[in-house]
Amino acid sequence: MPALSPQELYLFDTTGFLLVPGLFSAPEVAGFRAELDRLRPVDPGFANTLRYDGLPGASELFARLGRDGRIVGRVREVVNQPLRILEGYALRRGPDSVLYLHGGSSELLDLGGGTVGRDLSITHTYHDGKLFCPYVKALVYLSEIRSREDGSFCYIQGSHKANFPLLRPRAERGARTSLIDEGFPTLSDLFVGAGDLLLLNEALMHGTRRKRTPGDRALVAFGYGPTYMADWRELDGETGDLRGTGYVDHDVEEDFVR
Amino acid sequence: MPALSPQELYLFDTTGFLLVPGLFSAPEVAGFRAELDRLRPVDPGFANTLRYDGLPGASELFARLGRDGRIVGRVREVVNQPLRILEGYALRRGPDSVLYLHGGSSELLDLGGGTVGRDLSITHTYHDGKLFCPYVKALVYLSEIRSREDGSFCYIQGSHKANFPLLRPRAERGARTSLIDEGFPTLSDLFVGAGDLLLLNEALMHGTRRKRTPGDRALVAFGYGPTYMADWRELDGETGDLRGTGYVDHDVEEDFVR
Amino acid sequence: MPALSPQELYLFDTTGFLLVPGLFSAPEVAGFRAELDRLRPVDPGFANTLRYDGLPGASELFARLGRDGRIVGRVREVVNQPLRILEGYALRRGPDSVLYLHGGSSELLDLGGGTVGRDLSITHTYHDGKLFCPYVKALVYLSEIRSREDGSFCYIQGSHKANFPLLRPRAERGARTSLIDEGFPTLSDLFVGAGDLLLLNEALMHGTRRKRTPGDRALVAFGYGPTYMADWRELDGETGDLRGTGYVDHDVEEDFVR
Amino acid sequence: MPALSPQELYLFDTTGFLLVPGLFSAPEVAGFRAELDRLRPVDPGFANTLRYDGLPGASELFARLGRDGRIVGRVREVVNQPLRILEGYALRRGPDSVLYLHGGSSELLDLGGGTVGRDLSITHTYHDGKLFCPYVKALVYLSEIRSREDGSFCYIQGSHKANFPLLRPRAERGARTSLIDEGFPTLSDLFVGAGDLLLLNEALMHGTRRKRTPGDRALVAFGYGPTYMADWRELDGETGDLRGTGYVDHDVEEDFVR
Repeated sequence: MPALSPQELYLFDTTGFLLVPGLFSAPEVAGFRAELDRLRPVDPGFANTLRYDGLPGASELFARLGRDGRIVGRVREVVNQPLRILEGYALRRGPDSVLYLHGGSSELLDLGGGTVGRDLSITHTYHDGKLFCPYVKALVYLSEIRSREDGSFCYIQGSHKANFPLLRPRAERGARTSLIDEGFPTLSDLFVGAGDLLLLNEALMHGTRRKRTPGDRALVAFGYGPTYMADWRELDGETGDLRGTGYVDHDVEEDFVR
Repeated sequence: MPALSPQELYLFDTTGFLLVPGLFSAPEVAGFRAELDRLRPVDPGFANTLRYDGLPGASELFARLGRDGRIVGRVREVVNQPLRILEGYALRRGPDSVLYLHGGSSELLDLGGGTVGRDLSITHTYHDGKLFCPYVKALVYLSEIRSREDGSFCYIQGSHKANFPLLRPRAERGARTSLIDEGFPTLSDLFVGAGDLLLLNEALMHGTRRKRTPGDRALVAFGYGPTYMADWRELDGETGDLRGTGYVDHDVEEDFVR
Repeated sequence: MPALSPQELYLFDTTGFLLVPGLFSAPEVAGFRAELDRLRPVDPGFANTLRYDGLPGASELFARLGRDGRIVGRVREVVNQPLRILEGYALRRGPDSVLYLHGGSSELLDLGGGTVGRDLSITHTYHDGKLFCPYVKALVYLSEIRSREDGSFCYIQGSHKANFPLLRPRAERGARTSLIDEGFPTLSDLFVGAGDLLLLNEALMHGTRRKRTPGDRALVAFGYGPTYMADWRELDGETGDLRGTGYVDHDVEEDFVR
Repeated sequence: MPALSPQELYLFDTTGFLLVPGLFSAPEVAGFRAELDRLRPVDPGFANTLRYDGLPGASELFARLGRDGRIVGRVREVVNQPLRILEGYALRRGPDSVLYLHGGSSELLDLGGGTVGRDLSITHTYHDGKLFCPYVKALVYLSEIRSREDGSFCYIQGSHKANFPLLRPRAERGARTSLIDEGFPTLSDLFVGAGDLLLLNEALMHGTRRKRTPGDRALVAFGYGPTYMADWRELDGETGDLRGTGYVDHDVEEDFVR
């Protein structure tokens, strides 16, 4: 029996994400929170944010969560390739934290020889009844996020299939604020509860609102992709000897916001 | 200045390959042959064939060849992503060796939950004037291959953009011989000289004819792809813990020929 | 100077429509209403609805409106083919009228030899910076529609690029009510004012809510497409002699709702 | 039972055409020739060529041929839309006649607002196991064409799926001769016999060689497409009032050859 119903598949295809409410029980969520308390965060490079890296290696509980059939069964049906975990991490964000927009299927990437509008690491396709998404995130929420002030997940509708870039043309017209602050006609919010699973096509342009409320906003995230994708590791441009592996960001809001 | 002319780009796009005759001089070819003589072959799993693996690590000469601007400059313009070397090897084939057909953009791949007609590791696309091929081979020929009997490179026309699978439906109709032996209306040959470069979109279904002539048939091959592609390494199905990296073959002729 | 800004083009591409508020002045709207009063409606086949057909031929005012640069200039940039008017009509709807959902890029169409998931008359594509939409509607609203009760335009998000069908699988699971009444997670409303222009990719699955408020809900609509598209005329299946021209509906809600 | 075998479908998809040898018997071919003798040719605009137009209306025999199940059954499976005949004509060519190259999926079309690389009247796609080709020609050959000198059908391999334009960039580099005379690495010939059927995706760039041999070279051609495509009629650009229907040529060799 498929893990995703026809309606869920339709929704994931047309919107770029799927929310599965209440997939994890309150005791499970409490267990994930307690496990995070035992782990040591790294510097995330974002303000008011704790990041825990390498979860599958650092914690047996999270290693099991990354292989949990409730997640992996669903992920398989939107990747439809031999599957692996690309990364596993947790984020615990406090007040005033924000995550600017990133993703988008046609944002620009500068190469030595010019600029291109495709990042194959997120370029998805469809064939004969199956979706093929090379980079799918599974976000397990450990907090209630019921308003924008809670720092809700937000996204640009349809951006996972956009044919045009959004961020750079906007910056070239002089914009220097985030769409999260300035607004955009199709910027939408998603409110979630603790224990919810968000399945996300990384080609969707998404971020989170500025958190204004007290308390933390915690989630565990796993990235999945085909077995021939490398572990997710940010790469500082192209290495000179053509041997380096990793991911190179196309345009994201941080490139333009100041 | 672009490394590929508009006509060369048109040819690579429409046929799935590009032959650049005489790119390497006779002394260079002699040097590559001499270097192979110094290296130790591995068991290739194919009859009458010597295989040399891991060339960039095993030989400084071949490490330089893999980064040679004459190859890499051309490869960049059909990958159009941050680039890396995925593999480097050499093949030295004797009489009676053959390489059955593999590749094809819609051949089938069995997964736990069903069968799919896309292998994202070779799924290429086009956007805004650029090709995006995730797996491009550069073959440097060290021999003259002027006839089918020399074991020429052969391919199925247009198979790099095929919407239908070819091999499994044919096997299900009872065929147990290779198309290389049985023939196919669009199976075509490419004849090359020593020092020629063949740039190949791995989505093209290709192989080599049975070599009937004496002497060896030698080439050096490098695979290139985006930096987020793993080193090429054959994977025996999906590893249980979702951590294994490598490539899993979709249907190839070896699966059906007996 | 392009008629659509980069942001408008991004919105039309990602959502399947573009609202241009207040494009026509109040006197213009009054003139269109007065002209409709002079024309004779036809039987629309929908309850509580007046339909005026063949506007470009029936009225010089509407003939000019169909060629008005404010509409045609925008339409050109999303069709990007030699352009013609396919149809022009007006609808004046009273209380209790409804328009069930139709459109959707992968809804099913029964042919003699089987069922297909593409209706080429609405199949759009993108190439080198341009959209190519073969069927674009321009709706000029002559009423304020500020709530669902006013019978608002509603649509399924992202359905203009859906890879899966929605309606038939749902009907096969037993559903016999309209999504307009039953709801759907991504069914959204668009509220408009008199004088607004709605540019619509006919591949978007859309309809209107049940009108519950008094007064009429009036609009003038023009369909545009490439010159090689025939005038829109419903066709009763395929004519036996292969000479008939017109459109054959793929699945729409009327097929399943009872 | 499908009219096209899996192998025939694979060939039509990958090459843009399918040859069905000997579909019509020698007496049938003789009958078609005799019928042409009774009809009155029009001025074709090509040297040494007789053209017979409007065959389905002019001749009951050809009206039946246009609906013949041997043709239409095959055409249905590559159009996969409600089907109609767009045109029916015959050509009888004498010595020194030629047909320059036309077609190609990305050749350029000048519009008022710029240049585009798609002609939707030939833009084909694939979805869920079916091809969708909006313009398919069926050519019934009434002559033996066994050499280039007989004026063989010739085509550019893979041009029906080309992502780049060929003709205009070449003309801009100064070329003023036809590829038919100058040659091109992937320009290929197809030799046929009387009674053969050639099924052709009009997106393939094709033409015929210069006929050098005596005797005529005769064929009957039918164009098929979805019911919402207009009859094929050349249009002199876009008509000012948006009411004209017909086809507007994208770049063809006649535009550049002198």
